[in-house]
Amino acid sequence: MEAIKGYSYGRVSQSPVSLTDLELLKKTVMFNAEDEQHLKMAADVLRDQTSEVLDMWYGFVGSNEHLIQYFAHNGQPNMEYLTAVRARFKQWIMDLCTKPYDQEWLNYQHEVALRHHSTKKNKTDNVQSVPIIHYRYIVAFIFPITATIRGFLSKKGLDGETIEKMHAAWFKAVTLTVILWTYPYINKNEF
Amino acid sequence: MEAIKGYSYGRVSQSPVSLTDLELLKKTVMFNAEDEQHLKMAADVLRDQTSEVLDMWYGFVGSNEHLIQYFAHNGQPNMEYLTAVRARFKQWIMDLCTKPYDQEWLNYQHEVALRHHSTKKNKTDNVQSVPIIHYRYIVAFIFPITATIRGFLSKKGLDGETIEKMHAAWFKAVTLTVILWTYPYINKNEF
Repeated sequence: MEAIKGYSYGRVSQSPVSLTDLELLKKTVMFNAEDEQHLKMAADVLRDQTSEVLDMWYGFVGSNEHLIQYFAHNGQPNMEYLTAVRARFKQWIMDLCTKPYDQEWLNYQHEVALRHHSTKKNKTDNVQSVPIIHYRYIVAFIFPITATIRGFLSKKGLDGETIEKMHAAWFKAVTLTVILWTYPYINKNEF
Repeated sequence: MEAIKGYSYGRVSQSPVSLTDLELLKKTVMFNAEDEQHLKMAADVLRDQTSEVLDMWYGFVGSNEHLIQYFAHNGQPNMEYLTAVRARFKQWIMDLCTKPYDQEWLNYQHEVALRHHSTKKNKTDNVQSVPIIHYRYIVAFIFPITATIRGFLSKKGLDGETIEKMHAAWFKAVTLTVILWTYPYINKNEF
């Protein structure tokens, strides 16, 4: 497998969110051991479809000027930047479904958060682009990222109830992730 | 109909979020005219079930110490506060499904935002409780508020496809609302 540029899982600083806080967040999105099992099943279903998933998500971003601008410089989409992010986004799908949500996972979510925020935006890929991805679109993405995965979860002939459960687990996991990705945007002591 | 204490829809200050921003957010959560229609249908389905919906949501909050504390004072849940919020929360279900998402709607979402945030928490009901609802649980609530409504949407014998569409419209609308409710928590210029 070729190395993914900028994918530094396991080699980043500590998240300001504690494992205790993560447990309470998991309770709040109703995430449990059954969801972990269904995410592992989802990984098996999605593993050979991640390019098609990314095609769909990039198609959505690319057809919305207010979204593609976050990957642009002087109004021109930066293909090098988009390509580098795409490889990590594909890996994120598999990580979301297969990694244990432990300290290392928590730390990497915070690294991704900083890369959306002005703290580290553009630095990983050493590109020129707008200085921050605005907060509101990170939370808004919970919907398209959750709704569009369903078709892909349905493609391997599993029964409807299993697909439902994989989809619910995905929705919970995406919501958890988005919360962690928005940490740097939140006023001190209000997270 | 008895007046709902603290329900000041149409009589609040202007939201800092513009209608143009709202349109772009609607595009990002894929919200369109068909969703508006399905929310109106959802209103018809939910209208006589809002007490049961609130029973379920309050049951969830009440059984989680880390959530009920936001309605407590010195560790004791404040029933007067919980009751006042409950009446407005019921009204929110109907407003989400039936109100046009115009300037007035936008303004009221911001008022609700301020009431979660330390800016106005506890003031509407003149109660003593913790000074803020932490940001992370507002976003986390997208999942339980979306997942649990499905059973209620299914209770009036509509066909599966219509239920799906009402549920998707609800999910989009809840996500939009949550984004607006978190505005006061976001660092200046990062929303």
